Amino acid sequence: MRIMVINPNTSESMTDHLEQELNRIKRPDTALTVVGAERGPETIESAYDEAYAIPATLEWVKRANQEGYQAIVIACFSDPGLDAAREISTIPVIGIEEASLHFAAMLGARFTVITPRRERIPSRREHVHRRGLDYFLASVRSLDLSVAETDAEPEKTKRRVLEVARGAVEDGAEIIILGCAGMVGYAQEIEAELRIKVIDPSAVALKLAEAMVDLGLTHSKAGLYATPPQKGFK
Amino acid sequence: MRIMVINPNTSESMTDHLEQELNRIKRPDTALTVVGAERGPETIESAYDEAYAIPATLEWVKRANQEGYQAIVIACFSDPGLDAAREISTIPVIGIEEASLHFAAMLGARFTVITPRRERIPSRREHVHRRGLDYFLASVRSLDLSVAETDAEPEKTKRRVLEVARGAVEDGAEIIILGCAGMVGYAQEIEAELRIKVIDPSAVALKLAEAMVDLGLTHSKAGLYATPPQKGFK
Amino acid sequence: MRIMVINPNTSESMTDHLEQELNRIKRPDTALTVVGAERGPETIESAYDEAYAIPATLEWVKRANQEGYQAIVIACFSDPGLDAAREISTIPVIGIEEASLHFAAMLGARFTVITPRRERIPSRREHVHRRGLDYFLASVRSLDLSVAETDAEPEKTKRRVLEVARGAVEDGAEIIILGCAGMVGYAQEIEAELRIKVIDPSAVALKLAEAMVDLGLTHSKAGLYATPPQKGFK
Amino acid sequence: MRIMVINPNTSESMTDHLEQELNRIKRPDTALTVVGAERGPETIESAYDEAYAIPATLEWVKRANQEGYQAIVIACFSDPGLDAAREISTIPVIGIEEASLHFAAMLGARFTVITPRRERIPSRREHVHRRGLDYFLASVRSLDLSVAETDAEPEKTKRRVLEVARGAVEDGAEIIILGCAGMVGYAQEIEAELRIKVIDPSAVALKLAEAMVDLGLTHSKAGLYATPPQKGFK
Amino acid sequence: MRIMVINPNTSESMTDHLEQELNRIKRPDTALTVVGAERGPETIESAYDEAYAIPATLEWVKRANQEGYQAIVIACFSDPGLDAAREISTIPVIGIEEASLHFAAMLGARFTVITPRRERIPSRREHVHRRGLDYFLASVRSLDLSVAETDAEPEKTKRRVLEVARGAVEDGAEIIILGCAGMVGYAQEIEAELRIKVIDPSAVALKLAEAMVDLGLTHSKAGLYATPPQKGFK
Amino acid sequence: MRIMVINPNTSESMTDHLEQELNRIKRPDTALTVVGAERGPETIESAYDEAYAIPATLEWVKRANQEGYQAIVIACFSDPGLDAAREISTIPVIGIEEASLHFAAMLGARFTVITPRRERIPSRREHVHRRGLDYFLASVRSLDLSVAETDAEPEKTKRRVLEVARGAVEDGAEIIILGCAGMVGYAQEIEAELRIKVIDPSAVALKLAEAMVDLGLTHSKAGLYATPPQKGFK
Repeated sequence: MRIMVINPNTSESMTDHLEQELNRIKRPDTALTVVGAERGPETIESAYDEAYAIPATLEWVKRANQEGYQAIVIACFSDPGLDAAREISTIPVIGIEEASLHFAAMLGARFTVITPRRERIPSRREHVHRRGLDYFLASVRSLDLSVAETDAEPEKTKRRVLEVARGAVEDGAEIIILGCAGMVGYAQEIEAELRIKVIDPSAVALKLAEAMVDLGLTHSKAGLYATPPQKGFK
Repeated sequence: MRIMVINPNTSESMTDHLEQELNRIKRPDTALTVVGAERGPETIESAYDEAYAIPATLEWVKRANQEGYQAIVIACFSDPGLDAAREISTIPVIGIEEASLHFAAMLGARFTVITPRRERIPSRREHVHRRGLDYFLASVRSLDLSVAETDAEPEKTKRRVLEVARGAVEDGAEIIILGCAGMVGYAQEIEAELRIKVIDPSAVALKLAEAMVDLGLTHSKAGLYATPPQKGFK
Repeated sequence: MRIMVINPNTSESMTDHLEQELNRIKRPDTALTVVGAERGPETIESAYDEAYAIPATLEWVKRANQEGYQAIVIACFSDPGLDAAREISTIPVIGIEEASLHFAAMLGARFTVITPRRERIPSRREHVHRRGLDYFLASVRSLDLSVAETDAEPEKTKRRVLEVARGAVEDGAEIIILGCAGMVGYAQEIEAELRIKVIDPSAVALKLAEAMVDLGLTHSKAGLYATPPQKGFK
Repeated sequence: MRIMVINPNTSESMTDHLEQELNRIKRPDTALTVVGAERGPETIESAYDEAYAIPATLEWVKRANQEGYQAIVIACFSDPGLDAAREISTIPVIGIEEASLHFAAMLGARFTVITPRRERIPSRREHVHRRGLDYFLASVRSLDLSVAETDAEPEKTKRRVLEVARGAVEDGAEIIILGCAGMVGYAQEIEAELRIKVIDPSAVALKLAEAMVDLGLTHSKAGLYATPPQKGFK
Repeated sequence: MRIMVINPNTSESMTDHLEQELNRIKRPDTALTVVGAERGPETIESAYDEAYAIPATLEWVKRANQEGYQAIVIACFSDPGLDAAREISTIPVIGIEEASLHFAAMLGARFTVITPRRERIPSRREHVHRRGLDYFLASVRSLDLSVAETDAEPEKTKRRVLEVARGAVEDGAEIIILGCAGMVGYAQEIEAELRIKVIDPSAVALKLAEAMVDLGLTHSKAGLYATPPQKGFK
Repeated sequence: MRIMVINPNTSESMTDHLEQELNRIKRPDTALTVVGAERGPETIESAYDEAYAIPATLEWVKRANQEGYQAIVIACFSDPGLDAAREISTIPVIGIEEASLHFAAMLGARFTVITPRRERIPSRREHVHRRGLDYFLASVRSLDLSVAETDAEPEKTKRRVLEVARGAVEDGAEIIILGCAGMVGYAQEIEAELRIKVIDPSAVALKLAEAMVDLGLTHSKAGLYATPPQKGFK
């Protein structure tokens, strides 16, 4: 099957990183195309950044539909453009945050989301609320690093992730969601040290995409994700 | 005081209509500037439309901040770009949906939101949920008209609004929110006939903006609406 | 416009204080009448105190309706008698707690309510729950001072408010609501020091009252606030 | 044990009716004193009525505490004055609405509350919300009769109660709460005809009071029901 | 009246302990039969233990119905088999956890549940959620002792209960529920020292059972607790 | 990979049916073993049936762990024994109801669960509540057929499923979950006719199991699903 993975930001190193990681875990019969936004912010750390990342993301969504892909993964933890993408898509579109939250809720009583910047704690909490999963949320904790730092300084990031994960356990978390691509690859170490489960959102989303294609299942077009009416654009 | 009202779509007739209505109810000491998006969709009826309306809306938000305005109203019922606007704004930004929902919750036990298209019922319900106001929601009901039709066919729209409002009363609504600019101006007739209260979102938002300016109050920059970090854009 | 502000307790110094503060921020075209309850407790710190403050408050509500006022503000943070007042009133009645909670929910992700006495924390939390705004509540924190002390010892109160506000920030609050008239006037200092927003409930309520009058909007009489049926009273 | 049952309204026929019904079901070792408010409204059908019923109710609460009673039942379905009564009481105070809601939640998946007047539906719903029991609420339905009519016209009331109960079953109710003293005594007929359970609030409250006395259990004075601080009253 | 109390585990010392405690507080006209499961685990500390305790519990439920008992109490804090028991029973079946949670919610603003083992905190929280009572939950805290230890080492357990109860007060608890039979008998000491209320679940459940019998009230058979259809069993 | 699918009831025809359906959709590299309970009820339609189905289900869970399987699916829509199974399992255990609810929440705004018997509506609703997904639930509707009938009379069942699905669309459902094995195979027809999405729980669960194995992910043992302590069993 053919799956397009869209990195909604314009950082090529992140797109490369994603491609490497996901190619390691895809099924042999899955052909991945990992693409990055062609316009917009280098990293996405605010609603403002999202506003400029979404149109470029949607261009890729259109192409994936036109070019015969069978599923799309939007690979930024805030799921920018997910609703709009589903509206214009007839193939399943998976958001890595949405997928992670639902998987986490099936793996234990409570999860903690780790996010790079402190200022993004409220928006992470809000997305959990939107999904109705407040009951499963132990806490949102921040690394107090920028997304760029998590990408550039792996050792520092890793130490900090471990430290924050320990706090999550005190909050009652049984599962930790690594809420940013920059934290990919630290799951095993945290699992080993803290004896809890760690979710890598991009991996979970890819596997969910494969499952959706196997099932021939996609989002309903009967309401929330209905095809937008045609109209004039300036 | 100087307030900028932004119509996030590119329909000039809607911008004109808004300007007329709001100038009738503004305070004498308020100077209104009503502007429309310069790029993007003619009407906003999907997350897809919003995605393309938001960047143009944010351009106006930046100008309002630079040019010494004291408050901004985003005048489309789904509040497109509200979060991003607040992030880049130091003056209060009022969303007409958010303002209406909170006012409605102070006026009675339950409200109904009327929206033009049936497919938008889920997103209206979701915004109420995001605001934590599910408890106050009697129902969301649709006119089953496009936004353009509500603008073009006032008589048909009015009859339909009245019909739908009657259904809302059966749902237990004590207040009705006219969830689209195209329904502006029918409030009094519904109030008279159905003996319930009707909220005109743009009017409520303008008055809230004036109150905020009087109070010297704006949104907190300590978390959800923190100023976005500077970064490269492609 | 003519607005009556009712202090539901019998402390004349509080009524005077309120009159001073609100006259400073009212619109030029607003004529304020600030009155205090003629019978009942000196301060309101329990449901028991409220029980005896409400009938005296309702007497003023009746007079405001008879004497041509256009709006009423009930200026005690627990909103004593608000429901009953609305039932017998055809002009808008604003509760300072209700108004503050809804304004706070529009200004950021989470707010903290500061209340004088520790024993009142549960009833503050309960009022937030009644409004459906639990999601926005970071915490309720107490000064551990009586209402009379907050009125009599401004310096001590101010230091204590600042100290408690710092705790609120740790709870994730982006906005602080000063949940008692005795704390009025400290907003700016806290804002300056802690870089969060502070809500002064009486001020917010007055501005909301002015906005309601401008809008010609009042509470719905269709259900929760229906006019009580006539009946015998002993 | 000695239990005082307070009818918060001034209708002597209701007090008598209550006395008769409760004496039939009290334990042999229970001595009941059933009293009615000495001032206030004849029936309680609004927050306004409650405001004037509460002070008279609290006078009886004080006497019950002074005169060695072991428990108090406030026998009006809206539980007027319950919080204030508990604040000034060291013996358990049972509200017939609160008791019914919790019992109902233990007897099946969902209950319906039947209330006399349509305008009181929102306040019944609000009390369920305050108790956190929204999940168990199938519906609130009204007889569309005044409280006085339910007292004066038993045959009409009975027919109407049955009719409304049938609607409740369609709403998914497995239990029905007869939310007004005027409906007392129809439980068995409804149970027989509709094969659901019917709760008579006064009876449930009396039995709960007896159980509380047996257990030596009363409300906590550590927070919500703390003793009010002494202060001046005008 | 005749009440059967079922200890769902096979520890005879716990059954004896329960019999002693409950005989001290039953009404003179109540005849108690306290029985223990004949097969299954010695203590119940997991869903796995419950799975093997439930069939043996249901055998006693059948006998109680056949032998003319008027009510049943299932005396293990996780209420194992409560739903199934009600399905096959026409007499009231009381779960000690369910009864405690509802009583606690009537006694103050918030309660804490104390449970022996840390790993059971999530399931205690889940049962509160199932009952819709999240709003009343201050916290769940654990003794970090096994159920067997709480039974075997009373002095250690008592010290630990007091220590944990102090933490509960810091969490805002006004009421404490002793969530395991092994903690029975420490209520008074905690109440005296911490000035909060303490609930002994078995006692509360017995008194609720007596009240239900007096009321002639039992669970509804109209839905959740409908009699199971007959069918083949292998 | 090796996956064990457990049918918790003793109906061999259901086990066979399940085996056929799932073998059609499994991945080529997946080896399925589909087993049925060796003791217990023929179909599961009550908590009582579940009580006797769970021990037999757990025996298979133990064997799957001992015999080197990599994942387990419990294939009855009420997920009997899911918690206990996870406690004693180190490989992922998927419940078909839990999996379906989370998938449905990712495919649209609201879903309806269809269940065979009317009496099971409350327990279906309760499981949604336990998962925190109330917000996504449009309704639970019943076929008013026994599980055995759905198995024995495919044509009648199919007609009835279509009829009920139409009602679900009126409730606002965008997705339908076929909440019983007996309805397997009707998904496509409903999708074609009603233009909504239909979820076949067993299929979804199998694909989720395959994804979990690919991810090396299993439930957390840190709390809710901790390994039960060893103890004596009678």
